Amino acid sequence: MNTVRIPDIIIGRLPVYLRALQQLSERGILTTSSQELGEIIGISAAQIRKDISQFGEFGKQGTGYSVPFLIERLRDILKVDRVWEVVIVGMGDIGHALARYNGFANRGFHINMLFDNDQRKVGQKVGEYEIFDTVVLAEKVKQNKIKVAMLTVPATAAQEMADLLVKAGVKAILNYAPISLNVPSDVHVQYIDPVTHLQRMTYYL
Amino acid sequence: MNTVRIPDIIIGRLPVYLRALQQLSERGILTTSSQELGEIIGISAAQIRKDISQFGEFGKQGTGYSVPFLIERLRDILKVDRVWEVVIVGMGDIGHALARYNGFANRGFHINMLFDNDQRKVGQKVGEYEIFDTVVLAEKVKQNKIKVAMLTVPATAAQEMADLLVKAGVKAILNYAPISLNVPSDVHVQYIDPVTHLQRMTYYL
Repeated sequence: MNTVRIPDIIIGRLPVYLRALQQLSERGILTTSSQELGEIIGISAAQIRKDISQFGEFGKQGTGYSVPFLIERLRDILKVDRVWEVVIVGMGDIGHALARYNGFANRGFHINMLFDNDQRKVGQKVGEYEIFDTVVLAEKVKQNKIKVAMLTVPATAAQEMADLLVKAGVKAILNYAPISLNVPSDVHVQYIDPVTHLQRMTYYL
Repeated sequence: MNTVRIPDIIIGRLPVYLRALQQLSERGILTTSSQELGEIIGISAAQIRKDISQFGEFGKQGTGYSVPFLIERLRDILKVDRVWEVVIVGMGDIGHALARYNGFANRGFHINMLFDNDQRKVGQKVGEYEIFDTVVLAEKVKQNKIKVAMLTVPATAAQEMADLLVKAGVKAILNYAPISLNVPSDVHVQYIDPVTHLQRMTYYL
């Protein structure tokens, strides 16, 4: 199915489609249209149809999309029809918030382990998870074949921790530190920095 | 300068350029090149040159960019050469983390007020800020001419709070709730949902 390379900008929209579809599903809605999805998400119906059609035929003209089927297909395409074990590195405010966040469970991710280099935090628990020392980070990540990490350390420590994660086999890093990371080309990084998001909006004000 | 409409995807990269330039500046570096910036950010030098040239001439071939000048211009373009007062609505884990985050100060934003509807939280302080009841949200936001908000309430409350903010004059919402918001076309929304960011990466794994 994915023999043609799909532009990254389309891939970026698929999780948002999936989220909207799952919300429809929770409300017991079994069919939808690109029109309805577009109104929920704030994207044109034409864009949605075009994006989705990249992956094959999903609905007949006039009958709309089957919500459960489209959810299943998107979960398959995004590889979240399985559960990815995730580590959190950096147990400050954001690390704690993520460790306690209950929104990962049915969306393909499970927090596996927490790490910090602060000896006062090591050994403590956040919910059901113990905080481990970053000195055992590489070893634990390798042992448990972890591929996904959330990096919530200060900017000054982010590159060093990213290097450790990459060496240990991590292939996807969600980086909350406000710096750009240097990683090999087969490692994916996404950035969450509230300031860059805010600045992107003030341009228009 | 902005008579030609610049594509939103370019606008989205400018805050990242600005962040990298400010990091260079903090290290005392006064000139840089699209090559160097590209290596820091992980974008091609050609892309950076093309993006920046949308806003005029910033450097001569061979001499590179003046870091302070480019910072000044980008701050001007993104309208963060001033300070935007920001409210946080929803004082759960993420709201607390944002209220305590010290990365807003010199990047154009200042937390102004915090809100929650939980009476046990109302009146409490987070750092220097008091938590106000959401019943006074619209009034306070209007009074203080707030244009920017961060929305960190549960998904079930997000649309209602967004409606209040929009009515009170807010034009930019950074939404941490995992739902798409319905807002008028002159209101800008950016989304931070760790799961959509993670799913965007697992596609490639």
